[in-house]
Amino acid sequence: MTDPHAIDQRVGEDAARSSKRPRIVITLGDTNGVGPEVVLKCLSDSRLMKFMEPIVVGSAHAFKVHANKLGYRDLRFHVVQELPSQLPEGEITVLDVARGEKPNIHFGKITEVAGRLSMKAVEMATDLCLTDQAHAMVTAPISKEAISMAGYTDPGHTEFIARRAGSDTFTMMLVSDDLRVGLVTGHIPIWDVPKRVTHEAILDKLRVISTSLQQDFGIERPKIAVLGLNPHAGDGGVLGKEEAEVILPSIEQACEEGQLVFGPFPADSFFGIGAYRLYDAVLAMYHDQGLIPFKTLAFESGVNFTAGLSLVRTSPDHGTAFNIAGEGNASPGSMRSALYLAIDIARRRVQRRSQRKTG
Amino acid sequence: MTDPHAIDQRVGEDAARSSKRPRIVITLGDTNGVGPEVVLKCLSDSRLMKFMEPIVVGSAHAFKVHANKLGYRDLRFHVVQELPSQLPEGEITVLDVARGEKPNIHFGKITEVAGRLSMKAVEMATDLCLTDQAHAMVTAPISKEAISMAGYTDPGHTEFIARRAGSDTFTMMLVSDDLRVGLVTGHIPIWDVPKRVTHEAILDKLRVISTSLQQDFGIERPKIAVLGLNPHAGDGGVLGKEEAEVILPSIEQACEEGQLVFGPFPADSFFGIGAYRLYDAVLAMYHDQGLIPFKTLAFESGVNFTAGLSLVRTSPDHGTAFNIAGEGNASPGSMRSALYLAIDIARRRVQRRSQRKTG
Repeated sequence: MTDPHAIDQRVGEDAARSSKRPRIVITLGDTNGVGPEVVLKCLSDSRLMKFMEPIVVGSAHAFKVHANKLGYRDLRFHVVQELPSQLPEGEITVLDVARGEKPNIHFGKITEVAGRLSMKAVEMATDLCLTDQAHAMVTAPISKEAISMAGYTDPGHTEFIARRAGSDTFTMMLVSDDLRVGLVTGHIPIWDVPKRVTHEAILDKLRVISTSLQQDFGIERPKIAVLGLNPHAGDGGVLGKEEAEVILPSIEQACEEGQLVFGPFPADSFFGIGAYRLYDAVLAMYHDQGLIPFKTLAFESGVNFTAGLSLVRTSPDHGTAFNIAGEGNASPGSMRSALYLAIDIARRRVQRRSQRKTG
Repeated sequence: MTDPHAIDQRVGEDAARSSKRPRIVITLGDTNGVGPEVVLKCLSDSRLMKFMEPIVVGSAHAFKVHANKLGYRDLRFHVVQELPSQLPEGEITVLDVARGEKPNIHFGKITEVAGRLSMKAVEMATDLCLTDQAHAMVTAPISKEAISMAGYTDPGHTEFIARRAGSDTFTMMLVSDDLRVGLVTGHIPIWDVPKRVTHEAILDKLRVISTSLQQDFGIERPKIAVLGLNPHAGDGGVLGKEEAEVILPSIEQACEEGQLVFGPFPADSFFGIGAYRLYDAVLAMYHDQGLIPFKTLAFESGVNFTAGLSLVRTSPDHGTAFNIAGEGNASPGSMRSALYLAIDIARRRVQRRSQRKTG
C-alpha cells in the first residue's frame, strides 16, 4: 500500500492546477457522533483547505459546541442562513439548517433532533448540488436509528440522495488508492442474496461502474473483474450453479456491449494474490464479499462513493462511532480521503463539460 | 505481520529442544502438480530438516523425476517398500506407494494414475499416524478431479482422512502467525449456507476449536470470536435474524459450558481494525467469509490444519497449481509453514501425553 497522504497530495495538486477551487458542501452528520469532529479536523488542515471552497451544512450551534469541546477556538467561520452568491475568501461558511435553534448535544446518544437535523443537512446539500451552487457533497455519518426516529423511511443517506436526484441506477463504490469495489447486492440478509444476483442487476452495476470509471476517474477503457458468488466461483458447478447460469452470461453480454469485463474469479484468493491490482474495479456479489477485503486492505483511507448519480457524493467508510464521540480520538483519515476524492471527481466532471463545450 | 521465517524459527527451536525429532510423513500430492516441487524445496532446507525425521510417501519414480527436473541431484534419499523400524540418520526415506510401478509424469495434466497414487499415499500416511509409526502427516495438494477419475468419492483429502481416523467432528482451521480461522460451513453453495448455520453446528465447531487450541496450540484458556452471518451481523435484526436466533444463543451456551466465546461480530470491519488479534481463533460462518480475510492477510504463509482428529494433519493452503507445474517457480512458503506447524503440534501432543503419564 502506498502512503495515503501521497495519493491525497497527488490528487490535490491536480486540483490546485485549476484557477478555481471546487465548492464542496460537507454535511455535519449526526451531531452526537464523530461526524463534526472529523469535519473540524479536516477544515483545520491547511493542505486540504487550499484545494476547495468548503460549505459546512448542519446545525451551527452543534458545530460551535464541537469546535469548543475539541479546542478549535481559532477556527475562522461565519454562519449564514442563506448561501450568498460570493463566499468570503479564507473563511469557512456554515449554513445553519437549524435556523437559530440550539439543539442539545448528547455525545453518544441517539436522539430525534440529531436525526432530523442531520437529514435536513443532507437535503439542503443535495439541493445545492442539484442547482449547481456546489460541485460536490461529502456526507459525515448519520445514525439510521436517529433518522428513523425523526420519521425518515429511507434506510440511509444514499437512497435519500439518489431519490432526490432522480436516479434509480446507482451503486455504492468503495474507493481507496489501489482498489475500487462495487456491489451487486447491499444491505440484505445472506439468504436473500442468490435470488437478487440476476442478469439485470449485474449488467446494471457493470454499466454504472464502467461509466463512472470513465467520467469520474478518467479511465478511458476501464477493466472490471467480477467475483463468483460461491466458494471457488462454483468449482465448475459442484459448489453452485449461479456462476455458469447467471454471472458468466452477464459478463459475456457486457463484453459484447464493448466493456472489458473479466471473471468470475474465486473470491477467496483474489485479494491475497493481489489480482485486484490488474483491474480498475472489482464487482462483488454481496456486502461482506466486497467489504471484508476492502476494509482489510484499506481501513483508514477507504472512501464511499455513490456512482451513477448526476451529482458527486462521497463519504467516509466509517459510522457515527458513538462510543468515542466527543473524545477527540476519531481519525479524520477517511473523511480527508472522501474530501480529496470529491474534489478530484468534481474537477474531472467540470473538465469534461468544458471539453465538450469547446470540442 | 511479523516475518514468517522468524515464527518458523521460533516454533522450530521449540522442537529442537527435544532430544527426539518428530517423525513427519509427507504425502507427495498429485505428481503432475507443484506438490513434489514444494516438498523437494523443503527437504533441501537444512534449517527445517534438523527439526524432523521426514518420510516422503508417494511414487518414488515421480519423486526422482521431479528431483532431476528441478536439479536436486545431490539430495540423499533411499527408497523403501516397507517402513523399517529404524530410519537412517540424515537421509530422506521415500516410501514407494507405487511398488515399483513407474507412472508417466505429465506436468499440468489431470490423470487417473496421478489421482490413484496421490490417494494411495494419503491412505498409507494416515495409517502410519494411526498406528503411531509417525507423529504427524503433512499433505501436498491433490487434484479433486484426478481422484474422482480414480474412483474416490470423497470431496477431498480431509474427509477421507477423517473417515479413516474414525472422526465425524473435525474442522478445517486456517493458521498463520497471528490469525486462526475456523469455518461453520465449508464447500457448499451460498444458498445452502443459512440453513446449515445451526445451533449444533456452531457448538460442535466451537468445541473442536477450543479443545484444539488447548491441546495443539498450548493455550489454556482460549478466546474465540464468532462472526455474524449477515451484513453488520444482522444490524439488530434489520438485515437478518440468524444472529439473534441461532448464533447468539450458541455463543451463550458455549460460555455456559465454560468456553470464552465472544460475538457475533460484523465481519466487514473485524479484520481491517485488527480485532482478530484480540482472540486466539475466529469462527466464520462460511467459506469466503473466513478465507477472503485469511488469504488477504496471510497469503504465502497460511497453513490448513485439520482440528479435531486423533492424528495431526496439516497442509499448505494452495492447490496443485497445474499452470506452473514443473517450472520450478512454486513458492514453498506455505508447505514450509505446514511442516513447522505439524512439528510443533506433534511435539505439544507428545509433551501432553508424557505429562499425563508422569502427572
